[in-house]
Amino acid sequence: MTEFISKIRTIQWIDTYSRMVDQTLFPDEFKYINITTGQQMFDAIKNMIVRGAPAIGIAGAHGVVLYAQELGKKNLARDEFVKELLEKADYMATSRPTAVNLMWAVEKQKEIIKNSKSEISELISELKQNGIKLENEDIEINKKIGDYGAEVVPKNATILTHCNAGALATVGYGTALGVVRSAFAKDNTIQVFADETRPRQQGARITTLELTMDGIPTTLITDGMCSYFMKKGMIDMVVVGADRIAANGDTANKIGTYTVAIAAKYHNIPFYIAAPISTIDINIKTGEEIPIEERAHDEVTHINGKTICAKGVNIINPGFDVTPNELITGIITEKGILKPDYKKSIADIFKNL
Amino acid sequence: MTEFISKIRTIQWIDTYSRMVDQTLFPDEFKYINITTGQQMFDAIKNMIVRGAPAIGIAGAHGVVLYAQELGKKNLARDEFVKELLEKADYMATSRPTAVNLMWAVEKQKEIIKNSKSEISELISELKQNGIKLENEDIEINKKIGDYGAEVVPKNATILTHCNAGALATVGYGTALGVVRSAFAKDNTIQVFADETRPRQQGARITTLELTMDGIPTTLITDGMCSYFMKKGMIDMVVVGADRIAANGDTANKIGTYTVAIAAKYHNIPFYIAAPISTIDINIKTGEEIPIEERAHDEVTHINGKTICAKGVNIINPGFDVTPNELITGIITEKGILKPDYKKSIADIFKNL
Repeated sequence: MTEFISKIRTIQWIDTYSRMVDQTLFPDEFKYINITTGQQMFDAIKNMIVRGAPAIGIAGAHGVVLYAQELGKKNLARDEFVKELLEKADYMATSRPTAVNLMWAVEKQKEIIKNSKSEISELISELKQNGIKLENEDIEINKKIGDYGAEVVPKNATILTHCNAGALATVGYGTALGVVRSAFAKDNTIQVFADETRPRQQGARITTLELTMDGIPTTLITDGMCSYFMKKGMIDMVVVGADRIAANGDTANKIGTYTVAIAAKYHNIPFYIAAPISTIDINIKTGEEIPIEERAHDEVTHINGKTICAKGVNIINPGFDVTPNELITGIITEKGILKPDYKKSIADIFKNL
Repeated sequence: MTEFISKIRTIQWIDTYSRMVDQTLFPDEFKYINITTGQQMFDAIKNMIVRGAPAIGIAGAHGVVLYAQELGKKNLARDEFVKELLEKADYMATSRPTAVNLMWAVEKQKEIIKNSKSEISELISELKQNGIKLENEDIEINKKIGDYGAEVVPKNATILTHCNAGALATVGYGTALGVVRSAFAKDNTIQVFADETRPRQQGARITTLELTMDGIPTTLITDGMCSYFMKKGMIDMVVVGADRIAANGDTANKIGTYTVAIAAKYHNIPFYIAAPISTIDINIKTGEEIPIEERAHDEVTHINGKTICAKGVNIINPGFDVTPNELITGIITEKGILKPDYKKSIADIFKNL
């Protein structure tokens, strides 16, 4: 099984459809499913069959190709095809609200739709090629993130991570877990503490699966335990992924991340974000402007199909929180590690893109 | 159902046995079980059929009576009876290591065993009477804690609590939830946010049950969410229970409490402990000396009988953590609210006991 996870593709375009690992079945089953229509892709993103900001970006790009294929069978005039496809692309971008990679990848497809002079069949082919290009680039980007990140991982370090920013949150290799993989390749004495990450437990269900399959020593802890281990000196650094980064460095990530960041600050432990540049939303000044997805209440009230609380209790279930830039030691990207002042370091990166 | 919970007794001595609510069945069932032997009581404490520091104190006291009844049937010489009973009492005190109320209540029974001049049958009767006295005092103490605590609850407040320090963690009324009950009786606009409290989910399974039965508006959140709601200004204060308080105010409580305390400090939100004086271990200088129970791994790896993580993952499962005194706004006791410097305020209380 070693390196199994680091070699699979979480999402892959195959001829006329998108194949993805069904992430709702972990840790019981590891199964691929084929997504053949645009609406199926919309639902797969919404229901988290595919999840993780970079992976749902690629899913969105594939989804636009699926819609293009469907509309291509309708014998529409070219301008009508373009108009309907742009509408479908915008709809695809609404499947989840927080991760900006989804909007970014759909926008990349929309640019082709708007700028291409090709006939319909050729345009569909161009969208397909672009989807595959974004897919391949994602792995290359993650390996660069991993390599930059590995430089700041101390010898023999224990790295705490929250949720899953791994191979299964991307096309492959991972962002936060890409840093872990690159660091482990250089120094096999490092180890990982994985937060369970309630309510959906992606840390328990996905991160522990990925890392144990790759032979990286992993300890599962519940979300409230992080401070206990930090106080004991058992955590050397925190590395997490991101769903959207504002122009000032404020970072939205899975709910619970902000709590870990506060605990890290209190214990003077470095706290890093690992994410591709496509996660940065330069149009948003601060984290206050990032829309936070409110998810279904049964994610909190039920586990494995059984209720865990009293009837009549209120639920609020934000899927994400925002970690303010003051708690972030660095943002590890494929262009290097951004440091405070983030407003300046992020602006500099975008000037040179 | 209103006030149902506030009127039940979590644990009660009845003639020759101890009756308790089986807390492993929540939220599905509300059932009493009868504990008729010392070993049954040891197991009930160890397996958390009864839990909560004040409740397991009373359970320990009852357990000593059960052992006394058993030894009383053996026709032992009085000195042999006393020797064996003191050994059984010491064994009972080891059923769980962190909550000092257990050791405190067993010690109260040992004082009777050592100091009484009565014959065996009369000595057993004295132990029984003392168990009932401690039981009754617990409710009176909690009502005093509640009333002192209610004085620092702002009008219209939202109170965050962690785990369950309620009627079901005590004989009745509760410590942290005693504060909630007294505050709600004065001002029915207050409400509660309850942390789920992984791994055993006593916040979800017990606190939401207690509070909704008493008609107190309650919102269940997962442990990582506390900072999100604090940042939004939706939490006005935190009140939690305690399993052991050191002479300097450092406080052991259910794992995750320390993380909430750090988050409260970061957001300048008052963080209170509510506990009887019997929770203070004057023999321990700081929290460093408090033994932390390491619990079974399946509490982390399984929920509702089903695994949630990969095979081969490491587990560390501390049942408690220690919140340092610098994060604690006040310790609400039956003698009033202790404030920093805790070393001094705690010493003053013990001088006047």
